[in-house]
Amino acid sequence: MEFTINQIAAIIHGEVDGNGNEKVSTIEKIQEAKEGAITFLANPKYESFIYSCNASAVIVGQDFKPDKPLKTTLIKVADPYSSFTVLLDEYDKITKYSKVGVEDPSYISSNTEVGENIYRGAFSYIGSNVKIGNNVKIYPHTFVGDNVTIGDNCIFYSGVKIYAETVIGNNCVIHSGAVIGSDGFGFAPQDDETYKKIPQLGKVVIRDNVEIGANTVIDRATLGKTLIDDGVKLDNLVQIAHNVEIGANTVMASQVGISGSTKFGKNCVLAGQVGVVGHIEIGNRVTLAAKTGLAKSIKKEGSVKFGYPAMDHKDYLKCHAVFRNLPELRERVNDLEKKVLNLPAN
Amino acid sequence: MEFTINQIAAIIHGEVDGNGNEKVSTIEKIQEAKEGAITFLANPKYESFIYSCNASAVIVGQDFKPDKPLKTTLIKVADPYSSFTVLLDEYDKITKYSKVGVEDPSYISSNTEVGENIYRGAFSYIGSNVKIGNNVKIYPHTFVGDNVTIGDNCIFYSGVKIYAETVIGNNCVIHSGAVIGSDGFGFAPQDDETYKKIPQLGKVVIRDNVEIGANTVIDRATLGKTLIDDGVKLDNLVQIAHNVEIGANTVMASQVGISGSTKFGKNCVLAGQVGVVGHIEIGNRVTLAAKTGLAKSIKKEGSVKFGYPAMDHKDYLKCHAVFRNLPELRERVNDLEKKVLNLPAN
Amino acid sequence: MEFTINQIAAIIHGEVDGNGNEKVSTIEKIQEAKEGAITFLANPKYESFIYSCNASAVIVGQDFKPDKPLKTTLIKVADPYSSFTVLLDEYDKITKYSKVGVEDPSYISSNTEVGENIYRGAFSYIGSNVKIGNNVKIYPHTFVGDNVTIGDNCIFYSGVKIYAETVIGNNCVIHSGAVIGSDGFGFAPQDDETYKKIPQLGKVVIRDNVEIGANTVIDRATLGKTLIDDGVKLDNLVQIAHNVEIGANTVMASQVGISGSTKFGKNCVLAGQVGVVGHIEIGNRVTLAAKTGLAKSIKKEGSVKFGYPAMDHKDYLKCHAVFRNLPELRERVNDLEKKVLNLPAN
Repeated sequence: MEFTINQIAAIIHGEVDGNGNEKVSTIEKIQEAKEGAITFLANPKYESFIYSCNASAVIVGQDFKPDKPLKTTLIKVADPYSSFTVLLDEYDKITKYSKVGVEDPSYISSNTEVGENIYRGAFSYIGSNVKIGNNVKIYPHTFVGDNVTIGDNCIFYSGVKIYAETVIGNNCVIHSGAVIGSDGFGFAPQDDETYKKIPQLGKVVIRDNVEIGANTVIDRATLGKTLIDDGVKLDNLVQIAHNVEIGANTVMASQVGISGSTKFGKNCVLAGQVGVVGHIEIGNRVTLAAKTGLAKSIKKEGSVKFGYPAMDHKDYLKCHAVFRNLPELRERVNDLEKKVLNLPAN
Repeated sequence: MEFTINQIAAIIHGEVDGNGNEKVSTIEKIQEAKEGAITFLANPKYESFIYSCNASAVIVGQDFKPDKPLKTTLIKVADPYSSFTVLLDEYDKITKYSKVGVEDPSYISSNTEVGENIYRGAFSYIGSNVKIGNNVKIYPHTFVGDNVTIGDNCIFYSGVKIYAETVIGNNCVIHSGAVIGSDGFGFAPQDDETYKKIPQLGKVVIRDNVEIGANTVIDRATLGKTLIDDGVKLDNLVQIAHNVEIGANTVMASQVGISGSTKFGKNCVLAGQVGVVGHIEIGNRVTLAAKTGLAKSIKKEGSVKFGYPAMDHKDYLKCHAVFRNLPELRERVNDLEKKVLNLPAN
Repeated sequence: MEFTINQIAAIIHGEVDGNGNEKVSTIEKIQEAKEGAITFLANPKYESFIYSCNASAVIVGQDFKPDKPLKTTLIKVADPYSSFTVLLDEYDKITKYSKVGVEDPSYISSNTEVGENIYRGAFSYIGSNVKIGNNVKIYPHTFVGDNVTIGDNCIFYSGVKIYAETVIGNNCVIHSGAVIGSDGFGFAPQDDETYKKIPQLGKVVIRDNVEIGANTVIDRATLGKTLIDDGVKLDNLVQIAHNVEIGANTVMASQVGISGSTKFGKNCVLAGQVGVVGHIEIGNRVTLAAKTGLAKSIKKEGSVKFGYPAMDHKDYLKCHAVFRNLPELRERVNDLEKKVLNLPAN
């Protein structure tokens, strides 16, 4: 992806000071920017880098006056940081949605409906009776099982696996290796000590604006659906078991595991490696600190929990402060026992 | 998959009351059942739903008498719940084993033996000197390395990766993204502070009736074998290190990690996010509660452990009950010290 | 892979006693060795196995004198254990680098440079503007995105996913299902309680001699790079977040998770299921025990930490020793209170 500095200045409504015809192809931090890169200067404490870096272009404030000669071309704007984020967003959109067309060989069943402006990478597989919206990007090695429905503007990176019956909304991004719709983990113990599989015949429903990290797994429901609501963001290597429901705009960091049939409210935040037991309900805006193990429902909106079994965050920290000094506390009890023993009997 | 209500009634030996020629294509809960679905009514507390739901068919008891007019067709049976589970099993079997034949392009080496009634999805890869039994279903993007042996009636979902030399028994189900036979994690520290890889030349042996979850990893042995015995069920994102042996019918929930050379007995149950150290032995019917960290062998059959380092489950709960009140306990020790200090000296 | 016993004797400079023309195809432990296998006898306590096993060849010391008749062929060497490890290394090298050539169908963009002696498996995908060195082995279903650079002697097993822009050095091994360069987990909360994605426009840089386990994920940087330095070894199912830097020869066991922008020194060792918070710095030669949760920077070289929040390893064990007896400690405080209450008031 290459742009001239003039093209970039037009995107962010800036004024070029220098050679606007030079080309840039990457976006970097000012501390590391090399030739061919564009960067920005917002915080004056980084100003020294503008003289030493080899960036081809730097976005600066309208009132920026260099103290020393500059090798770089400047783009002057009102607010360099916000212009830079606009540029990042534009660059992201252009690069993400730039792939169009069908690479061969790829596989698509005949009775499948696909929208416009699609990318189907080589070795991608689209099963039978699938419906796919417009502007969807399906990278190589992605598998879309039978009877799947996918909305508009979704991106599935290489190697995403979507089992049959899954329903996915608009503007969803799913990263490589994520598995959506695998069987829930349900087995009934038998008299001979073996287990019999409980058929998992439900599905996964993912609403709009959801992002799912690499190698995350979301199991299909036993019956009914596992639900990922609007705007949910799941990091990498997360486990969502069968019949779980995750409320809108809830965020889960890497390696979180949610057991079967548990329901989360809206706008919850789970830090890394949290584990949550099955069949409980968690209210809105609940936060679970990293590595917390939650075994009971939480009704109170805005609760913050920590530890395992989970406690109120502040209480846990107070308990742990005593825990860190337990050998000393025991010593004090030893001393007390000696003193009390030595006291005169009444 | 579509059936008439008459066809379903025949499978579960029921009597049709209504239009038996109508077709059903999904199985749903009575609270959510829509047109085209079949459901069941066993618990009287759900009876109101039979009047409001739009299910095309409902399995009911022989003595069921509706209070109000019904839109749905009934299938009357002796025991609605058990008839419903029979239906689930049948449906599951039919849908799971319905795929047959070879989709193009797929890759298979010339010196490989494959049984009857196989499904080889597009972009699946079968290496050299592989033996595959009858009725095996290999979904797209599955990789089967050289010299692998696979029994009858196995299902490998899209993107399963089976390294060379692996041996898999009959009736095994492996979900998308699972990796079987990757190198064990063995490196010898060198004098220059680098590590030298210890070649991992053993293999993985999986016996019969094993189910392996999505994105789970089972490493090959250094020498000899990593063994997953009959009837073991592993959930998603589980880690099994080199030379581990898992006894028959042991069940491990998601995100469990077992370190190298550890051996489990039969019918153990490991809850989510448990971690087990290497080179220990665990007896039969041992249960480890969620997030437990086990660092010592357990000989006693039927032990239940919790916490990290793991303790007897009940003892851990007792200790944690005191932990939750440690600030108060410290306060009481503070008070005692003051009182004892204020006592008259003897 | 088949060799005659004479060929093996030549590799390890040994002397054949028996039929050197017999062929062996596997390497096994002496306790388990079957016909067609080679094994070794170094520790005299295993000597009985040499008479009972069916190995085709056994590597023994030059002074080994059998007590009983032997079925096996001997290869006599000065040091059987070290000769055996030489053999393992040779066998490993030969089998690992034996695949050469291109299997069809595979996908490679026209403007891509590939070195000599490459293996590109069926259904592998090489994007645009990619540079690949010599002697690289790319197994089936591997994805190499646009603008990726790869050094010499690398092995990518089936289903590795390398996002665009990634840079990989020489002699790296990446196992199946590993994902390199997926988007970092960065979302900015908005006033309407949704999250807006922060574009992740940096990359991943992996230096030389790195091994990465199956289904491990390394996210690309927001800007700049996520860095995996020389000789780092990551086990399976590890999570490395955006902008993390891992110093040379650091080793991380399975299911470890490192949060964004954290920096590790050289030669650190992280045991399984460790979690590390973002934006901290860890010095050289730091060890974190299994399941540790680290939330603060560690400057001191050689520190060993345990627990969550992490403490010095020995201190944690001392605290836990008291924790295990907390109910008894509380009982003692109860007794003290009764005794002090019963003392005569002054």
